[in-house]
Amino acid sequence: MNINAPVPVGVLGASGYVGQELLRLLARHPGASVVFASAESAAGRVIEGHRLLRADDAPLARAEVLLSALPHGVSGRYVHAARAAGKRAVDLSADFRLSPEAVYGLTEVTRPRVAEAELVANPGCYPTAALLALIPLAREGVIDASREVVIDAASGVTGAGRAPRRELLFGEVAEDFRAYAVGNGHRHLPELKATLARESGFTGDLVFTPHLLPVKRGILETIHVPLTRVLDQATAEGLYETVYADEPCVVVMHGSLPSLQDVVYRNRVAIGVASVANVRRPRLTVIAAIDNLVKGAAGQAIQNMNVMLGLPETLGLAC
Amino acid sequence: MNINAPVPVGVLGASGYVGQELLRLLARHPGASVVFASAESAAGRVIEGHRLLRADDAPLARAEVLLSALPHGVSGRYVHAARAAGKRAVDLSADFRLSPEAVYGLTEVTRPRVAEAELVANPGCYPTAALLALIPLAREGVIDASREVVIDAASGVTGAGRAPRRELLFGEVAEDFRAYAVGNGHRHLPELKATLARESGFTGDLVFTPHLLPVKRGILETIHVPLTRVLDQATAEGLYETVYADEPCVVVMHGSLPSLQDVVYRNRVAIGVASVANVRRPRLTVIAAIDNLVKGAAGQAIQNMNVMLGLPETLGLAC
Amino acid sequence: MNINAPVPVGVLGASGYVGQELLRLLARHPGASVVFASAESAAGRVIEGHRLLRADDAPLARAEVLLSALPHGVSGRYVHAARAAGKRAVDLSADFRLSPEAVYGLTEVTRPRVAEAELVANPGCYPTAALLALIPLAREGVIDASREVVIDAASGVTGAGRAPRRELLFGEVAEDFRAYAVGNGHRHLPELKATLARESGFTGDLVFTPHLLPVKRGILETIHVPLTRVLDQATAEGLYETVYADEPCVVVMHGSLPSLQDVVYRNRVAIGVASVANVRRPRLTVIAAIDNLVKGAAGQAIQNMNVMLGLPETLGLAC
Amino acid sequence: MNINAPVPVGVLGASGYVGQELLRLLARHPGASVVFASAESAAGRVIEGHRLLRADDAPLARAEVLLSALPHGVSGRYVHAARAAGKRAVDLSADFRLSPEAVYGLTEVTRPRVAEAELVANPGCYPTAALLALIPLAREGVIDASREVVIDAASGVTGAGRAPRRELLFGEVAEDFRAYAVGNGHRHLPELKATLARESGFTGDLVFTPHLLPVKRGILETIHVPLTRVLDQATAEGLYETVYADEPCVVVMHGSLPSLQDVVYRNRVAIGVASVANVRRPRLTVIAAIDNLVKGAAGQAIQNMNVMLGLPETLGLAC
Repeated sequence: MNINAPVPVGVLGASGYVGQELLRLLARHPGASVVFASAESAAGRVIEGHRLLRADDAPLARAEVLLSALPHGVSGRYVHAARAAGKRAVDLSADFRLSPEAVYGLTEVTRPRVAEAELVANPGCYPTAALLALIPLAREGVIDASREVVIDAASGVTGAGRAPRRELLFGEVAEDFRAYAVGNGHRHLPELKATLARESGFTGDLVFTPHLLPVKRGILETIHVPLTRVLDQATAEGLYETVYADEPCVVVMHGSLPSLQDVVYRNRVAIGVASVANVRRPRLTVIAAIDNLVKGAAGQAIQNMNVMLGLPETLGLAC
Repeated sequence: MNINAPVPVGVLGASGYVGQELLRLLARHPGASVVFASAESAAGRVIEGHRLLRADDAPLARAEVLLSALPHGVSGRYVHAARAAGKRAVDLSADFRLSPEAVYGLTEVTRPRVAEAELVANPGCYPTAALLALIPLAREGVIDASREVVIDAASGVTGAGRAPRRELLFGEVAEDFRAYAVGNGHRHLPELKATLARESGFTGDLVFTPHLLPVKRGILETIHVPLTRVLDQATAEGLYETVYADEPCVVVMHGSLPSLQDVVYRNRVAIGVASVANVRRPRLTVIAAIDNLVKGAAGQAIQNMNVMLGLPETLGLAC
Repeated sequence: MNINAPVPVGVLGASGYVGQELLRLLARHPGASVVFASAESAAGRVIEGHRLLRADDAPLARAEVLLSALPHGVSGRYVHAARAAGKRAVDLSADFRLSPEAVYGLTEVTRPRVAEAELVANPGCYPTAALLALIPLAREGVIDASREVVIDAASGVTGAGRAPRRELLFGEVAEDFRAYAVGNGHRHLPELKATLARESGFTGDLVFTPHLLPVKRGILETIHVPLTRVLDQATAEGLYETVYADEPCVVVMHGSLPSLQDVVYRNRVAIGVASVANVRRPRLTVIAAIDNLVKGAAGQAIQNMNVMLGLPETLGLAC
Repeated sequence: MNINAPVPVGVLGASGYVGQELLRLLARHPGASVVFASAESAAGRVIEGHRLLRADDAPLARAEVLLSALPHGVSGRYVHAARAAGKRAVDLSADFRLSPEAVYGLTEVTRPRVAEAELVANPGCYPTAALLALIPLAREGVIDASREVVIDAASGVTGAGRAPRRELLFGEVAEDFRAYAVGNGHRHLPELKATLARESGFTGDLVFTPHLLPVKRGILETIHVPLTRVLDQATAEGLYETVYADEPCVVVMHGSLPSLQDVVYRNRVAIGVASVANVRRPRLTVIAAIDNLVKGAAGQAIQNMNVMLGLPETLGLAC
């Protein structure tokens, strides 16, 4: 692939937070050229130099790859149209994440399948962080499946989309913090459990509780892992380090723990661990952080696109 | 007690966030009159109409009750001096929380002892929320002690004090979120465990992980409770409702969960529950929220003072 | 007026930010009792212990005073109905601010007229701060009308109301700052100019530019005043101090300038001044700050109500 | 200049907010390679892959260009040392901004001089925005020098540096907004006036009032310009458009006004205008926005470095 001849890329759903991030990242991508960008109510507006079309008016034929950030339930139809026209696609909605039609694009885990895929389902933001934190432990067989893995996750508000809703107003969110979908009610949980089982064989119970943070972007997950045997901090760090030794977009912390400012505006997951003192049975607490709009959405989509196209995996991305 | 003759109250440590909140609340308290307020580096400044003295210059003899918001390790000395002068005291530091010299002032739980106390140790902010959430379940015997209770707590920055530290700068905290003292390292944990054991008999394992929120005030705790038997949401709400039926400063939510905006600037704890679906063994998630400066510090201190003085318990407080 | 027999008060428009603040303040007001509170889409919800009715179902007859925080254009109809039923009213909308039917309730300036009023138009938030800052200078005749008075005002988002709009989402407002209605386009300007002319005779040009701050509440106005003669800082402070000597809700700063944290959650305006160096003709910069929901709306409405009822002016208010 | 052979660059003062931004930007710069980065108290830490040295240990000889983000008063000494060793330098402190030793690096205005400079003084953040907004009007001769130009500027807290100070704590800044250096007391004003006079001949009075915003980064300036003749919005926009027609880092808005979110994380100034209605004499309000860390500091420094080295001016920068 000649990086001097940029690949023509089409973006659907470009006026939401994820779509904007796609355009922002693609503007700096030396191997891709945006040939159209769509939005519905925002059609006609210009973002990053692209005048937004309505999705139905987008010239699918001009793109080699389609990146769709359309809403769940809507995206699938356009992706199918692009596929029917012989285009490759990365779908950022949930429409294909549990579907055999698509390869699940958790790049670090499914890279070889992504490289050969015509259609990639980009993972949800919460599962991206949780899976990259849990799969190494699960594959190592150290998670005690007789006790629950408890995941408390907190996300910036761009994860909730850009449609106006009272509970997302600044006057409501600032100086507030709340849990939602408590009691395993979040739609990302089936995706997380199915992928964890498929990629590691782990089928123990998870308790997943998302929270809404008064920040614009970023996800931090505090993952409480019951262990079958003691893992001290250095050993656990070493385990992650070995697994992710060659990964440009994974940062394993040593003797410290990540926070949002380690990851925002970057296409990385940062992972740190701590063993838990003063409990009768061994436990590990893992902290994983990503930017929900980058590694949790637009950045990982471009990472997947690069893999699909045979481009350098991090081209155009700051990891 | 005649509420028309205000009780003379002295405040030590008045320039920190907790001390300021004491002065703010006492300014509206019809049964108390601040006779002195101290600070060290801020001595000479005027807050709520009181010119701050140095603690060593405070006329302890003029107060009937001393409220000390001095730092841990410093407070004890002044409280002892006040006690030696025959004054009653509420200590807001950690100096007496594990000491037999003082009554632990978790008002809803230890009220009769507070009423007779000469010295009250005001609880830590994190334990206040956790204990009011856990004690009813523990006393009911429904917590499965063979699995760990996992508490993820998030606090506004005023909980970390007002001394200048780089990690508390706006430029660091805004748009960030981090865990700290991960792995059961927080100094509030022994207070929490000892009180829980003493007041309920529960001695199972806890995993307590505090986080720093980009908000000024408020604590939200997401408490994951393994159960010995199924408790559906209505039953669990009913249990709390029965226990706290006559409590003016406890709000039990019905069919919803509290967030910080339900509690800030109020002397209340708000508690809500959700049962956890799709797990093999019964679990409950309890959300408890307080204002760390009010029910978690200055407000509860005044609530305790009111009880000690035989005043109406919520006099001067908005619950 | 016997403060032991609370005055029955009705609140219309109780689910918006101003209406909520009314209920919050009235809950602590020892001389008033809320007999109904209305909202439209939120009817049925409970706020501060009051189940919200629809405005059309509100039992106007049961109230002695009506406080209306209904939207502009809607409020007038209900206020007229209350007036027709012989009730006194404070209208917090803009519907009567330029009308001879009502007394303009800038309490510190129009107190005697408020005391005799049956209908008070509560001032807009921006004009409240600007007028309390400018009227003393204008009455003193020191403003140079040949040069423009430039007012740059910044408000927290609760000033923009609670209806969901994209530009008020946390994801848009956080980390942002913007001017709006630039070029003298804000609807508060005619109110400000008319009141300033009526109360002080000043008819010089004003340039008023509001900005949207990423905070929940508070207004800060930086008011650039060209002078007819030099006024040093101490003299200017003295002028304000003399004018506002007996005002419980005005704080004149000495040698410092107010910021939002001096005023939020209080029914006060704080005013500070600085003379301007290195300019050829004399100028003063005046900084005025209020809480837009308290002195800028609900608090001043209650202050006016207290005056109308002959109650102590600050009853139930923290100034 | 061959962009495949990166220029070796040294960075002093790399642990502050500006220094970090330099490293962040240089990490993505295809024509530059960081050969050392210094800090004092943070020496030993690793930022963007560079282990920080103490400034006195920095191998100045290995760099071709020095970028110094050291504090005012300290920077000059190191810059002189680099100059003595024959190195080119961009100084981001205030040490050379009024000095004939250096070229003032407001790139769009002084580009030809920058191209030939050995030492560039990078402009202050506030002057950068104000000068790019005012110089076109001043050169056109439309500013009425008999009335003052009033500039109200608001900056995110990273503009105040990273040293711990109480007034910069999150607990103080969040939900607050304050003016400072009121009355023409800010040290950027002489730089602004001198440069404006030198580059445009304008010597009328300015009133400059900075404010501290509760955001991390970004400056918005609301600039009130008295005019000698009427300029409607379209004409004023056209004037800017003509002046900045070929400038990649200047965005002239049409029919709208910039806010911080138009400029953060970008090396651009965005300028919008509005004429002022309902005043007797013609006036224009100009809104100018920059990211204080990018176009206001690190980004403009790299822009200047690119010009000095004959590299494409925006290489490595997102404008």
